[in-house]
Amino acid sequence: MTEYHTFTTQDAMLFADKHSGLFGEHSKLHCEEFGDGNLNLVFRVSNDKGTSLIVKQALPYARCVGESWPLTIDRARIEAEVLLKHYKICPEHTVDVRHYDAELAAILMEDLHDYHILRNELIAAKQYPHLAVQLATYLASTLYFTSDFALTGPNKKQQVGRFLNPELCLITEDLFFTDPYCNHERNNISADIRHDAQQLWHDEALQAEVAQLKADFLSKPQALLHGDVHTGSIFINDDNCKLIDAEFGFYGPIGFDVGNLLGNLLLNYLGHFGLSTDEAKRQTHQDYLLQQISSLWQEFAERFKQFMTTDCKEPTLQNSIYQQRFMQQVFADSLGYAGCELIRRTVGLAHVADLERISNASSKSHCEKLALQLGRQLIMQRHDLASIEQVITLVRYLA
Amino acid sequence: MTEYHTFTTQDAMLFADKHSGLFGEHSKLHCEEFGDGNLNLVFRVSNDKGTSLIVKQALPYARCVGESWPLTIDRARIEAEVLLKHYKICPEHTVDVRHYDAELAAILMEDLHDYHILRNELIAAKQYPHLAVQLATYLASTLYFTSDFALTGPNKKQQVGRFLNPELCLITEDLFFTDPYCNHERNNISADIRHDAQQLWHDEALQAEVAQLKADFLSKPQALLHGDVHTGSIFINDDNCKLIDAEFGFYGPIGFDVGNLLGNLLLNYLGHFGLSTDEAKRQTHQDYLLQQISSLWQEFAERFKQFMTTDCKEPTLQNSIYQQRFMQQVFADSLGYAGCELIRRTVGLAHVADLERISNASSKSHCEKLALQLGRQLIMQRHDLASIEQVITLVRYLA
Repeated sequence: MTEYHTFTTQDAMLFADKHSGLFGEHSKLHCEEFGDGNLNLVFRVSNDKGTSLIVKQALPYARCVGESWPLTIDRARIEAEVLLKHYKICPEHTVDVRHYDAELAAILMEDLHDYHILRNELIAAKQYPHLAVQLATYLASTLYFTSDFALTGPNKKQQVGRFLNPELCLITEDLFFTDPYCNHERNNISADIRHDAQQLWHDEALQAEVAQLKADFLSKPQALLHGDVHTGSIFINDDNCKLIDAEFGFYGPIGFDVGNLLGNLLLNYLGHFGLSTDEAKRQTHQDYLLQQISSLWQEFAERFKQFMTTDCKEPTLQNSIYQQRFMQQVFADSLGYAGCELIRRTVGLAHVADLERISNASSKSHCEKLALQLGRQLIMQRHDLASIEQVITLVRYLA
Repeated sequence: MTEYHTFTTQDAMLFADKHSGLFGEHSKLHCEEFGDGNLNLVFRVSNDKGTSLIVKQALPYARCVGESWPLTIDRARIEAEVLLKHYKICPEHTVDVRHYDAELAAILMEDLHDYHILRNELIAAKQYPHLAVQLATYLASTLYFTSDFALTGPNKKQQVGRFLNPELCLITEDLFFTDPYCNHERNNISADIRHDAQQLWHDEALQAEVAQLKADFLSKPQALLHGDVHTGSIFINDDNCKLIDAEFGFYGPIGFDVGNLLGNLLLNYLGHFGLSTDEAKRQTHQDYLLQQISSLWQEFAERFKQFMTTDCKEPTLQNSIYQQRFMQQVFADSLGYAGCELIRRTVGLAHVADLERISNASSKSHCEKLALQLGRQLIMQRHDLASIEQVITLVRYLA
């Protein structure tokens, strides 16, 4: 019964019914599978009164560029446990996991049916004024309260051991830090920007910085990261936003989560040079994005600093000079990882709709070139950019 | 039979006999216990033909400052596994572990009966011309081949998980980084230097640097460290030297092992201002020490760089600009940890014989003050000291 088998809609329905008190004995249940089926099965189970839950099951393989390779279903444990930990710290912005079954690699969680995927919303130039503050709250609290500031050495080490996540980290190590900087067959490079991509493969100064960022990804377990904070992992509506999809979670550099999000907001900013047809609307949306980016960092830093003042359990790290330098380092790391995200989403395996949906080919390659240019600038200048306002200025005056 | 129980000499003899083919059926065995019994039992088991082995058993508690507290016997696993890993990489300078029993927390290992403890030899002003080269070989090879340069991401993460060693790391976190910089009851401060010690408790600039070094100790798993490379963990003779006592082993910053050793050599250098009665002999020994310190870093860096050129399995980290910066960072870290070692061995719980054996009280406090002064300088100036020669100059002109 509990041995691993790929769920049918019937299995998902039984699983949801068994592990929630929601549906009740006589409810008529309905179930549909709506995932893309590449890595996971995703089912929506609902009753006739409009109550619904999501069942997500990890498949023991991943389909990618046409081929399939085995991939540990332990990632369902990672996903469930990261979400549960983050929920405990920040319930308002983390999807609510109701049950997790290790054998079946299946998670029962709240259905965010009245939310939308942030990436689609931003592509449609929709504005959510609370975006920055809410995401800053999520990032600052989940990252702070899983860090050396808040945990004892032994407790932190135990957490590091639970979230090593070697297989999924390896995917990031390869796709994020290795492939874009060499002529790798996994890369996905449009013909129009091939020359720009090739420059990355010979740019030793840039590669030295990326090496440092990768070394930190490998050996800087500062906090329990979500590990994949792109705008497709964020659900949003007029009131709130929530993070999902934490299977890439692990103990890594704080700037990786922050930088991934910054990178994705910047990709949307750049995409609108090609997506928007109405000049005024484009400018309004881009101004909104830059204001959110600025606010995101400021609110994040403000909250994190506040926590360091009020909730630092480790006496040695209470030193204010150290804390100030720590925030500077997180800022530089964030810009570096944002830059990597811009580059790998442009020339690496996995692209983003913000650029892919640009129908005009020359607009698209123009935006892609801007992404590579800005990515490089952020990586190379991350220690010199003294404030988020300087970053905004850099973005505004992109050639 | 195999359930944990504290060994008698009879148990140790049986254990050694069972797990070695050395003694043979009709050998007459002899066994003596000669450890200090604070943390471990240490037995020498020998036969009548002069063959001997060491049996080391971890006790489930530690006696310290008069009190006993429980301490995991899993540290015997850590010790055995670190030594086995280091032996595989550098058999010439790692004690040979013949057998390890997890249940009994007992290790059977080679008896280094024709070796001496380095600390005692250096206190007696004995010179070993090969010291620096051999220890540089040990450090460079064991640290390099357990690092991100030599292991895949997943393999490295698996190793990190095996060597989290939370309990023994916590001892270092407290004794090395916390206690000396506050008025902690565990501190052991001679009355004559109490004023100098108190300055440490109010030195926010120094504390900021120590916070950074501690944060790296907590969250920079660069390589599988020995974790306790002081001159009491090194056995030496005219031909060779070998490392023992690896129960503090864990994945940490490379500079921690290197810096601990540098710090202990510097403690001996300073100690001889009080230990030596013959001025000329003192100068000769101190010159020898500085020459070994210089050679230790140079040979270490040379070997490590060579490995990065010939044995780097991680393509992203093959970048020469990155590698150069990496060595600079290891150098700065090493100086910082050396400085911490000087300070904690002077005012913290665990002192070293190099200073403690100075019989003249005012000579002793003079040397202790120099240790605090040099310790602070190394920590504060570690990013500005551009070469080991600059460090030597700093030491030579200590006021």
